[in-house]
Amino acid sequence: MNGAESLLRSLVASGVDVCFANPGTSEMHFVAALDCVPGMRAVLVLQENVATGAADGYARMTGRPACTLLHLGPGLANGLANLHNARRAASPIVNIVGDHASFHLAYDAPLTSDVKGFARPVSAWLQSSSSARDVGADAARAVRAALEPPGEIATLILPADTAWQEAEGVAPRLAPSAPAAVAEATIAEIAKRLGTGRKAAILMRGQALLDRGLTAAGRIAAKTGARLMCDTSAPRIQRGAGRPNVERLPYLSEHAVQFLAGTELLILVGAKPPVSFFGYPDKASWLTPDGCQIATLAMPHEDGVAALQALTDACGATNVPPRLTDLAPPDYPLHGALTPDLVMRVVARHLPANAIVADEAVSAGLPYYDLTAAAAPHDYLNITGGAIGCMMAVSTGAAIACPDRKVVTLQGDGSAMYILPALWTQAREALDVTTVIYANRGYKILNSELLRVGAANGGRNAASLLDLTNPTIDWVLLASGLGVDAVKAETPTEFETAFVRAMQTRGPHLIEAVV
Amino acid sequence: MNGAESLLRSLVASGVDVCFANPGTSEMHFVAALDCVPGMRAVLVLQENVATGAADGYARMTGRPACTLLHLGPGLANGLANLHNARRAASPIVNIVGDHASFHLAYDAPLTSDVKGFARPVSAWLQSSSSARDVGADAARAVRAALEPPGEIATLILPADTAWQEAEGVAPRLAPSAPAAVAEATIAEIAKRLGTGRKAAILMRGQALLDRGLTAAGRIAAKTGARLMCDTSAPRIQRGAGRPNVERLPYLSEHAVQFLAGTELLILVGAKPPVSFFGYPDKASWLTPDGCQIATLAMPHEDGVAALQALTDACGATNVPPRLTDLAPPDYPLHGALTPDLVMRVVARHLPANAIVADEAVSAGLPYYDLTAAAAPHDYLNITGGAIGCMMAVSTGAAIACPDRKVVTLQGDGSAMYILPALWTQAREALDVTTVIYANRGYKILNSELLRVGAANGGRNAASLLDLTNPTIDWVLLASGLGVDAVKAETPTEFETAFVRAMQTRGPHLIEAVV
Repeated sequence: MNGAESLLRSLVASGVDVCFANPGTSEMHFVAALDCVPGMRAVLVLQENVATGAADGYARMTGRPACTLLHLGPGLANGLANLHNARRAASPIVNIVGDHASFHLAYDAPLTSDVKGFARPVSAWLQSSSSARDVGADAARAVRAALEPPGEIATLILPADTAWQEAEGVAPRLAPSAPAAVAEATIAEIAKRLGTGRKAAILMRGQALLDRGLTAAGRIAAKTGARLMCDTSAPRIQRGAGRPNVERLPYLSEHAVQFLAGTELLILVGAKPPVSFFGYPDKASWLTPDGCQIATLAMPHEDGVAALQALTDACGATNVPPRLTDLAPPDYPLHGALTPDLVMRVVARHLPANAIVADEAVSAGLPYYDLTAAAAPHDYLNITGGAIGCMMAVSTGAAIACPDRKVVTLQGDGSAMYILPALWTQAREALDVTTVIYANRGYKILNSELLRVGAANGGRNAASLLDLTNPTIDWVLLASGLGVDAVKAETPTEFETAFVRAMQTRGPHLIEAVV
Repeated sequence: MNGAESLLRSLVASGVDVCFANPGTSEMHFVAALDCVPGMRAVLVLQENVATGAADGYARMTGRPACTLLHLGPGLANGLANLHNARRAASPIVNIVGDHASFHLAYDAPLTSDVKGFARPVSAWLQSSSSARDVGADAARAVRAALEPPGEIATLILPADTAWQEAEGVAPRLAPSAPAAVAEATIAEIAKRLGTGRKAAILMRGQALLDRGLTAAGRIAAKTGARLMCDTSAPRIQRGAGRPNVERLPYLSEHAVQFLAGTELLILVGAKPPVSFFGYPDKASWLTPDGCQIATLAMPHEDGVAALQALTDACGATNVPPRLTDLAPPDYPLHGALTPDLVMRVVARHLPANAIVADEAVSAGLPYYDLTAAAAPHDYLNITGGAIGCMMAVSTGAAIACPDRKVVTLQGDGSAMYILPALWTQAREALDVTTVIYANRGYKILNSELLRVGAANGGRNAASLLDLTNPTIDWVLLASGLGVDAVKAETPTEFETAFVRAMQTRGPHLIEAVV
């Protein structure tokens, strides 16, 4: 077998069975191998940021890496922004990046670039295969590296000749490290501090925000009165009816400071201490109140779920039932204007059980997160690294990971323009994704940021750079052009009708919500 | 004045007066400063690859840098592919990349990334300002670096606090280096070689392909019989009626080898020796015939035009009239199918004088380049670095650089999907750009590459990854959704009618040519 087949068979042997691909000439042997090797689903995307964002969404929902197939340095470069987000999400991903044949690199042909240079800022593991004989083993190592807790980006560069030359065969799967155990002394120490009556909060991230971790955290909260929290950029949280409620840190630093006020003990489980998203003139970056003790129960690479379960026992909360959220989606009026608040209320009320919500509504979404707290049980995916143009791709990958679950993307119009080709892949793969575009016709969050940094002066040029009218983007035409069923909603009734219909009909939909 | 104003005034003082911007929070002071500083035209783009591609097009047409305004590492990352192309075009560009306030970097907030790491592979000059007092001088240095012959990418990273703190003032323009003069001995030596009767060819790039260089080269060709050539990826060439004809090297290496066969002396003027675009199994990367002498008249950073003029004198060709192309656009039939060949014939016949053609038609364009050789005089822009998703952005910048000239973008459908947001900026700025989409519904060039690398096996998976049907993209809907007048053409008559109308009507148009 040639290197491409060895690569593909080794990836499959290591448990990688989905590939988000935008191949070019240097990847043609890999493409051809897809027809001889069973077990790999290849999903064509029309721009690389869709591939990397989809791999992020797939990893968030499965805990397993998909691979991407990218064409040389520029192909990788086009996917870097969503790899930045995926790195912040600790999503395991294996990037396969083709390069020129090794003998061709010396000629500095037009597409030659510093592929490793592009990859380094986002890759925890980075290697270029030096011969076809190494490709299989390199692939197995890449998968193991991606699964290193809590999850990493591994990038494997394959010179074209390593794909077409004769290879060794299939490399066996390499077992990744298990998450490290938290020391018993740490658990005992934190249990003791929790028992002192200090106002405590548990800030969680990663596996701790899924059911087993939440149940343990819910028992501790019920027993000790500790608040349960996650940060604004938590990659994934399970919430809604039947689950303990976890408060999300507000996005704006002054709100976050208020939110944390009075906390005397902050316990970190896979999370870092909260800091503001941006630095501002005369505002603090560090958000924890003065004098608040910060105690780390589990680092991101440690087993936070086991640590929470052990802490439950150490607190005497083993049999304490957690306080669970009742199903109580918010009401809304059908008169008046369609607002971001109302959109979120409609979503909360009509979200089917077990849905996945991928939220990149930015200014139109951040303040309304709590409205979905008592919706039917669902998974909520946040934008983790702040690189916009993420969630239409993440939801594409999430839908491939979870074909039986409804996926709802809440997407700002400014950020949607970055990732439009994702809709085409949703149509081609008939994915059950409903995209809600918050068509507020501007980079609205920047209007507030302009004020917050003290730069607003009411000038025409500044206003024009934050404005998406002239021309107004027609999302129904854009979605239809890419094969996705689309409708515009300008009133609460229109939005409710469109959203309910989308929830009841499988397949990709887009609703342009004019807010 | 604050750092942002100092930056902006220093850029204007250095001759930079266009900014292609997609700003975020860390760039808000720069945005605000646009309203106090006259002389900078800010053009909003909806994705960063449009900004960098437009800056490339602007530089190709003016020889001067525009600046880009990009938001932190991910914003820069989104623009890297077209910076790769711009680097290969030797286009002067100044990237202004915002970063977190310096005091905020230590907190590793979600958007924190290795901005320098992302920038390094494409930037010849790279610096991060350390205080507001340095910003003006750093900007002047960045502009000088960008103008270093033949043209470079300069990237200036500005931590947000360097924008809002008090600055020094306006930095004066720094004179860039002039292109180095070619030694007289080199010119004499090449003149001597040209006189020996060997079959010679002059391979040109850069300024040598504009009128003054072409006139000199045309005299030499008329006197000595040397062929005039440029490479497939030449950034810009002036051609058409009234100019000497320059043959373009074919894209496919076996055609290029044939094209160069018999050449005994290859004279390089700002060009590198020709190599194949990709390396293939059992094919040579080096294209020049065995035994061919390669002589460098001018390196890319040297004054190739002056060298050609001096060579004219040294050859005794000073008063020899160059052979000029007669206006003789090709005919075409109006019956039969619409083909890429016919599209190019219609373009050649109806191209107005002084138009700019930006060609990224890839498989649908490469074989038909010669059809425009005897069209009305025009500038032809090629994709220089092979990173697709380039020309709709390049033509956006070219139209801003040359508002009185018609711009025609020849764009493959696969590559158009990478750079769709460019259409919105063309609509907003009412740019006189006509985009022809070659809707062949696939990555057709990869079908041939699959064969060429010996990987074709007729499999379904491979075919599916190169295919853009299911769903078929509707370009008329996409363009209309972004505010651009659009029409579909399925027959020669429909295409001719649409193209002639677009040539006669100012403003942005898109024609979906179903080929």
